[in-house]
Amino acid sequence: MRDLLPVEVLQRRHLLERILPVYEKYGYQQIETPALEELDRLMGSEGGDNDKLIYKVMKRGISDWPPASESDAADLGLRYDLTVPLARFYATHSNELLVPFRAIQVGPVWRAERPQKGRYRQFMQCDIDVLGETSADAEIELLAGGAEALTAAGLSEFTIRLNDRRLLRAIAAWAGFDNEQEACVLIALDKLDKVGAAGVADELSQLGNEKAASKLADLVPMLEETRGLDAMLSALPVTDDQVLGDLEFIVKGVTVSSHMEVDIEIDPTLVRGQGYYTGAIFEVEHASSGGSLAGGGRYDNMIKKLSGVDVPATGFSIGFERIWDLLSGTLSGDGERVVLLHDATDTATVQRTSADLRNRYVAVRTERAGRNRSAQLTRLKNNGFTHWFELTNSELSDINVIEENE
Amino acid sequence: MRDLLPVEVLQRRHLLERILPVYEKYGYQQIETPALEELDRLMGSEGGDNDKLIYKVMKRGISDWPPASESDAADLGLRYDLTVPLARFYATHSNELLVPFRAIQVGPVWRAERPQKGRYRQFMQCDIDVLGETSADAEIELLAGGAEALTAAGLSEFTIRLNDRRLLRAIAAWAGFDNEQEACVLIALDKLDKVGAAGVADELSQLGNEKAASKLADLVPMLEETRGLDAMLSALPVTDDQVLGDLEFIVKGVTVSSHMEVDIEIDPTLVRGQGYYTGAIFEVEHASSGGSLAGGGRYDNMIKKLSGVDVPATGFSIGFERIWDLLSGTLSGDGERVVLLHDATDTATVQRTSADLRNRYVAVRTERAGRNRSAQLTRLKNNGFTHWFELTNSELSDINVIEENE
Repeated sequence: MRDLLPVEVLQRRHLLERILPVYEKYGYQQIETPALEELDRLMGSEGGDNDKLIYKVMKRGISDWPPASESDAADLGLRYDLTVPLARFYATHSNELLVPFRAIQVGPVWRAERPQKGRYRQFMQCDIDVLGETSADAEIELLAGGAEALTAAGLSEFTIRLNDRRLLRAIAAWAGFDNEQEACVLIALDKLDKVGAAGVADELSQLGNEKAASKLADLVPMLEETRGLDAMLSALPVTDDQVLGDLEFIVKGVTVSSHMEVDIEIDPTLVRGQGYYTGAIFEVEHASSGGSLAGGGRYDNMIKKLSGVDVPATGFSIGFERIWDLLSGTLSGDGERVVLLHDATDTATVQRTSADLRNRYVAVRTERAGRNRSAQLTRLKNNGFTHWFELTNSELSDINVIEENE
Repeated sequence: MRDLLPVEVLQRRHLLERILPVYEKYGYQQIETPALEELDRLMGSEGGDNDKLIYKVMKRGISDWPPASESDAADLGLRYDLTVPLARFYATHSNELLVPFRAIQVGPVWRAERPQKGRYRQFMQCDIDVLGETSADAEIELLAGGAEALTAAGLSEFTIRLNDRRLLRAIAAWAGFDNEQEACVLIALDKLDKVGAAGVADELSQLGNEKAASKLADLVPMLEETRGLDAMLSALPVTDDQVLGDLEFIVKGVTVSSHMEVDIEIDPTLVRGQGYYTGAIFEVEHASSGGSLAGGGRYDNMIKKLSGVDVPATGFSIGFERIWDLLSGTLSGDGERVVLLHDATDTATVQRTSADLRNRYVAVRTERAGRNRSAQLTRLKNNGFTHWFELTNSELSDINVIEENE
């Protein structure tokens, strides 16, 4: 976990101020849920390792120590994503919400991961979700809004990779894997980027179905070469007109809806890690970043699993911390942030002058002029201030820019 | 704990968008700290009952169950205020911060209180603090900025009550109480609002110093009548020129600095609950609210106690939840939030039309026209939408206002 210094908070707020209005233009509505959820609900959701990642909160006022077991000691947990809270929120409030419900969630989540460079145990997530829409209109809205938001944030030259879990499942079935093996097949295919086609073949061969494994392994190099709808139609051993129709509808709709030329690449090797996706899946890639900047997909069964309420759902999540890393140099608050350096002789004049300056600038800091002007200005620059005035013997100087290497 | 619905999030964001820019104009800089702090640090701070109020987080990966004691089971806790984190932040980062350091903190805190109406276990705090300023310039900045922020939020006719702990301590000493009894004397005086002068006399008489108790009890009714500097000069049995000078300096400075007529009332009966104040204390009252809307004071010794770094400090905290309660009816997002009701026959036209509308409005929601127009519009109104269009047979209607009782 980490503190955020003043300049960092400015940058992050600025980034959000670019993203949020775009999502609101698309009709998404921001909601907030508490940081703590019932531990049972957090543990009950899909996501294997989450159990170990949850910060568990002890019951208050335990009178008999020790409780019989660890699970008797804790009843709440810090949320590790925004999807479990969204499901609970929707189940609680669906009567008051619009149909379809387009949600924005921006907030911290917590994961008790091993500390490593660039990873934090508290970090921001920035999600949009459409609940209650079965058609691919939902995917179009998410991708058009997402592409416009990333562009507004200052990113260019990103690519959206698009695929559909239904195609991947059809391919696994065609190869001869049964339903129970499907999840493992997807996990193996998801490693293609890291281990290559030979590595995937290796993984597949360990699933205990040699014939299916070799059939699929033979296909993988071809999938790697296949991009776009037409190529897929000729390369895939099985296709599904409904799915291909949806993908085509999505690609066209995103461009119409966003008024932008969005680079969408249909990619049969895109899998995404999570097990819960049921339809279209997508990921945003950018040349300057190793991993993906954003991603999501359709998860029609999960809200029911989490909350008992059966509602189709599609989501898009921006990797806020990663985008902040990429863009931080380009982000600063708007307007001139000025400093009034004064000699402290006449308090009333300092007060009056700074009150006047506040009518003209977004930030006015008063500070006693120090002996080392250059060091003082450098510190101010590093803290996000852009201009300075000097007040000596009640005389106000002209405005000065704080130079890069003052 | 509670969820925040879309309209509530809009209102709260709008409230913050009124307050934060004022604080930034005064040169305050926003920082953020993690929700979790070391439990030892949270427990070690002043604040008696806080121990019971802390949500404690269990250590991860406890291998031998049970741990010997409750304190062996938990190592982190959710912050219950923003002052403990500020002290730790300052001690960690003071080399990178400006002097004086003017901090804005806005964020949730958690307290495991008994559930009761209008109280939440997770709630927002909105604090400004000046660290590193010994002069009453700090108090002036806090109160001028605070008064301007409350006015920008939409409040009028509030009164700032102002007093100084040094005067209260001098009065306790004058009556004959010794240093150890001082805290209890302040606690008794703080109940004046609730129990009246006779009740305070009762409390004082239980402190085991009858002579001092009756001397002070005799003074209390007079203190109740005394408002303003001149009245205090004649009514108080002991005064302190330095303190009275500071109070006068503060009252004058707030008006000059804020360009506003701020209603400040010097009130010798203002005590405030917390034990840690060392100088000026203040509270903001409003006719429409039972308790105070904001408050703060100087706490010069606390940062040292919490973090080891000796730095003078003054703070002002806005009761965000209370002000939201008061103002929620007047808060809404800016701009027109429109809905496009369509007949779903021509998806491409819906997409194109909503893209066009997004160039003109801050929010554009697309939704299939339902059978019950009036119910549909009411739900939209309740969700913060203000206008609607209709798209039938690819023809767009004129804009319509969603009426109050559609």
